Amino acid sequence: MGEVILVQSGYSRSHENGELLCDSVPLRVIAETYGTPTYVYSANTIRDRYNALSDALTGVLGSSKFRLHFAMKSNSNLSILGLLRGLGAGVDIVSGGELFRALKAGYTGVDVVFSGVGKTDEEITAALKAGIKSLNVESPAELEAIQRVAESLGVVAPLSFRVNPDVYVDSPHPYIKTGEHGMKFGIPDDQIVELTKRTLELPNVRLVGLAAHMGSQIAQAEPYGITAKKLLDLANEIRALGVTTLRYMDLGGGIGVTYENESPMNLIAFANAIAPYVIESGLELELEPGRFLVAESGALLAQVVYRKRSGGKDIFITDTGMNDLIRPALYEAYHAIDSVSPVENQIVADIVGPVCESGDFFALDRTVGEVEQGGYYALRGAGAYGYVMASNYNSRGRPAEVLVDGDRYGLISRRETHEDLLKLEYDTPLWNIE
Amino acid sequence: MGEVILVQSGYSRSHENGELLCDSVPLRVIAETYGTPTYVYSANTIRDRYNALSDALTGVLGSSKFRLHFAMKSNSNLSILGLLRGLGAGVDIVSGGELFRALKAGYTGVDVVFSGVGKTDEEITAALKAGIKSLNVESPAELEAIQRVAESLGVVAPLSFRVNPDVYVDSPHPYIKTGEHGMKFGIPDDQIVELTKRTLELPNVRLVGLAAHMGSQIAQAEPYGITAKKLLDLANEIRALGVTTLRYMDLGGGIGVTYENESPMNLIAFANAIAPYVIESGLELELEPGRFLVAESGALLAQVVYRKRSGGKDIFITDTGMNDLIRPALYEAYHAIDSVSPVENQIVADIVGPVCESGDFFALDRTVGEVEQGGYYALRGAGAYGYVMASNYNSRGRPAEVLVDGDRYGLISRRETHEDLLKLEYDTPLWNIE
Repeated sequence: MGEVILVQSGYSRSHENGELLCDSVPLRVIAETYGTPTYVYSANTIRDRYNALSDALTGVLGSSKFRLHFAMKSNSNLSILGLLRGLGAGVDIVSGGELFRALKAGYTGVDVVFSGVGKTDEEITAALKAGIKSLNVESPAELEAIQRVAESLGVVAPLSFRVNPDVYVDSPHPYIKTGEHGMKFGIPDDQIVELTKRTLELPNVRLVGLAAHMGSQIAQAEPYGITAKKLLDLANEIRALGVTTLRYMDLGGGIGVTYENESPMNLIAFANAIAPYVIESGLELELEPGRFLVAESGALLAQVVYRKRSGGKDIFITDTGMNDLIRPALYEAYHAIDSVSPVENQIVADIVGPVCESGDFFALDRTVGEVEQGGYYALRGAGAYGYVMASNYNSRGRPAEVLVDGDRYGLISRRETHEDLLKLEYDTPLWNIE
Repeated sequence: MGEVILVQSGYSRSHENGELLCDSVPLRVIAETYGTPTYVYSANTIRDRYNALSDALTGVLGSSKFRLHFAMKSNSNLSILGLLRGLGAGVDIVSGGELFRALKAGYTGVDVVFSGVGKTDEEITAALKAGIKSLNVESPAELEAIQRVAESLGVVAPLSFRVNPDVYVDSPHPYIKTGEHGMKFGIPDDQIVELTKRTLELPNVRLVGLAAHMGSQIAQAEPYGITAKKLLDLANEIRALGVTTLRYMDLGGGIGVTYENESPMNLIAFANAIAPYVIESGLELELEPGRFLVAESGALLAQVVYRKRSGGKDIFITDTGMNDLIRPALYEAYHAIDSVSPVENQIVADIVGPVCESGDFFALDRTVGEVEQGGYYALRGAGAYGYVMASNYNSRGRPAEVLVDGDRYGLISRRETHEDLLKLEYDTPLWNIE
């Protein structure tokens, strides 16, 4: 099936002094400059990922027959969005808030596809006013809502059906499977013909695409091939009903990354698996990679506040917690943990956060470098579903974010302060009556 | 063991028109006035809970021998803090951010105990400057840090040892157990004597209390009795070492509430179980209730955006998601779901959110009132660990919060806007070099 395209992770040890580097900047310098906890991202890793996927697809489809829409729910920082825009990406959004952000980052309507099961009238209105490329419809009720809103605005809404492909994918956690019947996502394929007929009756909508999404962390090319074939068959069926406006085949995201020892997707095999069906369909391919583009670019820097022993265990308490990175608590997710500076010993220990909850841990009984109090750890693979899921639990402000690009680095969001946390509140209730 | 003290939940159906009320305000009015999703809290429920616990303790200890320190990590809104301050509560804090908030809400240092395993130098400094009642020490390393900071400030730091009681409690989820050895919380009891001796050598600390915390959602009085006995024994042991400054016995929080069909704690039994040991110790009792005071006071109002069918299931998609209330996804927590207005039929359905994740659900295969598109549901028991754990995942702004007090209601935090979500970010990175 061809060779695996190697993509770099952005992080390496300095041959000179053993310091952990992001691109060519020591993470210790970042921690000392900006404090901790701080998210760091490698710009080169994001570029490398984008280009590897883009090159694999160009090889089989040509550069004008596909577009990568970054799933910005994975990392929506304006600077990251700007970086990807510069590479040619569009975005895949899931809310009005993401649309607002994408437009702020310089994307225009034609760069944007809108996914999500619960689009409100307000969100549909904003999307149509922005001249969006496609609204991915998830239910018959949503189709009617889009018609109603489009009619009131006097426009024709471009839409795609998000088909629930009923493809079984071996995902590591039930929360990241999306493509089976009985789940909230997508339209069951046996409802598509009926919905197509209804669409043809509605004056303010135009069916421009077919979309499917299988889940997350998928390492095999085959499910993508099967799904592309399903969408091709469905496209033919829909065209036979009189639809002449189909332009896009959207295969969603879900390409796996390596957090621990997962096999990476073979991008050549991936491209080869889907190309025949895409080409036969005559449609342009849309992909919605999120995690694949940004996960391995990111690390969360944390300082060791205390070390303690309890029940025969060594426990390192850091200054970052589940409010900053919830993946271990929520998904039992694995993040590699490296000492930022060189250490003499390895030790089996728990790495935990300061939040008052037993679920506030990053690793249990893990072999890690033995870092002194005041030293730093880097939690790797934190570029996707990290900062965007951060909360203010325990009244903790969110971390700073820093982008590294070769030998330079810069703040892309500032650390949240105690004052920031009160900005939405009133000193006393605004009573309706005195 | 005496009768269960009945405490009200704040929510009931109007006998006149079937509308769901919070105190005497229809939730439909709240939803229509402030939009959705919106958190609502019943002030009377919080008062009722506070008074029930306070009365039970007063009955056996007298009113001057205990204090309730609200665990504000459960709900830190300034108006809720103000309400509890008016009732006589102190606070239990776990971070510098919570200290900042508590002071803003009018509490002073003597009202505050500081729990948490990862207090930084900055947080210890702020606490000592505020004249805090007690720092609850969780490790030998933290003791040394407090001495160091107190010395630099020229003050004597009041501290309590948080003892890990190694009491097994039958908690519903492993993430809310805290009191067993090998967990990150507390000092194993076999380390206490040694640490006491060390404390006596340090000039800038004074041991004023002993604390323990067993976990969450505890319905039995017995573990509290066992723990109080352990702290009494430890107090005697410590006094025998020459400590003359003990004043407080802190039994933590963890009193259970009813989300579904859990038995409530019998407060009289609770008070009776601990009283003999507290009295014999001559110490003042501190309790740190959080969930108990606020959980049942709160509801999260959500609107039905769409209804769909997939795989033979009925699915109601609401406008609130896991970013607003993460307990079902994170803890598999149960929240009762009521239709806000009267409905004709009951239906078995999934109630889900709009977030692009299969874990974004509130109930699966639950019998609920059949609400029309545009109608409202109330997710009950959302007053604790609801808003405080909310995030901006999917670039969704946080809900509004409304306090109801009898027949009046008022906004206590405004809905977060798209613009708010960008406040920490820069349009382009602040590079260290040009």
